[in-house]
Amino acid sequence: MEEIPEPGALEMERSFQRALPLPDDLEPAFGAALRHLLRHPGSMVRPRLVSQVAAAYRIEEGVANDLAIALEYFHTASLAFDDLPCMDNATSRRGAPCVHVPFGEATAILAALGLINRAYALTWKALAGCPSAAQAEAMTYLEHRLGVYGLLNGQSLDLNYARLPHDRETTERIACGKTVSLIRLTLVLPAMLGEASRREIRFLERMAMCWGLGYQMVDDLKDLLQTSAESGKTAARDLHLDRPNIALAIGVPAAVVRLTRLIRLGDRMLSRLVAIRPSLGFLRKLRTDLESELTRVTENACDFTGALER
Amino acid sequence: MEEIPEPGALEMERSFQRALPLPDDLEPAFGAALRHLLRHPGSMVRPRLVSQVAAAYRIEEGVANDLAIALEYFHTASLAFDDLPCMDNATSRRGAPCVHVPFGEATAILAALGLINRAYALTWKALAGCPSAAQAEAMTYLEHRLGVYGLLNGQSLDLNYARLPHDRETTERIACGKTVSLIRLTLVLPAMLGEASRREIRFLERMAMCWGLGYQMVDDLKDLLQTSAESGKTAARDLHLDRPNIALAIGVPAAVVRLTRLIRLGDRMLSRLVAIRPSLGFLRKLRTDLESELTRVTENACDFTGALER
Repeated sequence: MEEIPEPGALEMERSFQRALPLPDDLEPAFGAALRHLLRHPGSMVRPRLVSQVAAAYRIEEGVANDLAIALEYFHTASLAFDDLPCMDNATSRRGAPCVHVPFGEATAILAALGLINRAYALTWKALAGCPSAAQAEAMTYLEHRLGVYGLLNGQSLDLNYARLPHDRETTERIACGKTVSLIRLTLVLPAMLGEASRREIRFLERMAMCWGLGYQMVDDLKDLLQTSAESGKTAARDLHLDRPNIALAIGVPAAVVRLTRLIRLGDRMLSRLVAIRPSLGFLRKLRTDLESELTRVTENACDFTGALER
Repeated sequence: MEEIPEPGALEMERSFQRALPLPDDLEPAFGAALRHLLRHPGSMVRPRLVSQVAAAYRIEEGVANDLAIALEYFHTASLAFDDLPCMDNATSRRGAPCVHVPFGEATAILAALGLINRAYALTWKALAGCPSAAQAEAMTYLEHRLGVYGLLNGQSLDLNYARLPHDRETTERIACGKTVSLIRLTLVLPAMLGEASRREIRFLERMAMCWGLGYQMVDDLKDLLQTSAESGKTAARDLHLDRPNIALAIGVPAAVVRLTRLIRLGDRMLSRLVAIRPSLGFLRKLRTDLESELTRVTENACDFTGALER
């Protein structure tokens, strides 16, 4: 099995900061808002994964980098929109004030649109060298994951959660639109560029859905259990704000069972995938990390139960 | 000289309404906001022009239509953003309430992003059959007109106009970013798809800039003179709201002189262009319409001066 080296986070951060060159004569507040977004790149987990999957398909580094940064720009823009006062009304993001806090809503919106515009251009550039069938497939996939079938509808369901049934189906539908869409793009798009077979794409798709939903469930469990353990309160943030949370909807034990099942389903996809393309073996780390997170969270759950019993 | 038939406005409206298929299970408010935008298509001047230029370059009708609707979706989305309470705080648009009025800001933003996402996909589809050099040129051109070099920076300058010098340079810079960007795309992109020569593109570019700025100046003159003549007041909306207005910045007589000069400059470009590509002769109508508008407005100006003298 080949080793796919993990690209350095610092290197990727530098690309993130440089892939949107800003002209000198920008309107000053607009320029400052864009620089604010570019200076706070987050963990870069997604773009590093794009690079690794791309390497597994022997895609040229420059092309992989364009795609990786494009997806991270889409992600960053979606966070800037989500954080707006008319949406989640957040104040801090990635260890800094949300972009609308110092620059106002209008400028935050324009800066987020600047990232989106650049992200489409970078995606286009990444796709330019591909055979036209792969191009068309990848573009439709991108459109569906980001657009009215994917991220945007997920965000809209999320905003209107108070009016919706608080059940497994709804919370998972929101997670699939809002969170899983970008994880699917992260794992599937570089494979499409690498002309993966239909079977590979199908396994990658299903694995991305299992893991994407899995990571969202770990987040939901953390919100419920870690905050509780730390603050000594039984209720958590999602509950207080009436936010979608799968563990809240179906209960902690059922969420743990479901998550364990998702990990197992993902395992099946992963082993079939690695049988076809051994260079994707590095993905096992994602699965191991997900299970470790689950273990940590459920340990907290035990503490929490213990605290309640005392 | 060939005759380029002008596509029917109704036909184009139908395309506008149908080019973004909405799934049945959309979050209801999000779906309703999208349908609101799709049901109020505006005058469709731009997409009809795209079709005509495309026909002059013998571009296949389906391809031309995709490009035409894509540009109109970008335009519609930019209006939905401009109208938001945090930007121009408008209440009506295209004879209906602005999309944020019935559906709220968050849903309006998501619906506008839905149009943008679809617009990029349609552009991509239109470009898919072109030779790769034309594709790359068109994509960069689109990115620059819509992004931080074009529309977005223009909108940001517009929002911050109160802080900027109220002179010709600034008002024209804002118009170039905010208004002219889309007119340039309308005239130049279909020619790029039709593999126009560098010379043709250069003439089209300059003509689009002359006319784009010209139409903006007519609007500015109208704001100043028609409102005055109609309402009997000397001051106009742009003056009251401290909005950029070229006629306000340099005075009505200087604006008329400048506009006449722009029409003449445009004429020079147009005649060179038609010498190379006679099928573009239909563009003369745009120029004639611009001059008629100027005449109508300056007649109002005489009334206005007369009213002042009485």
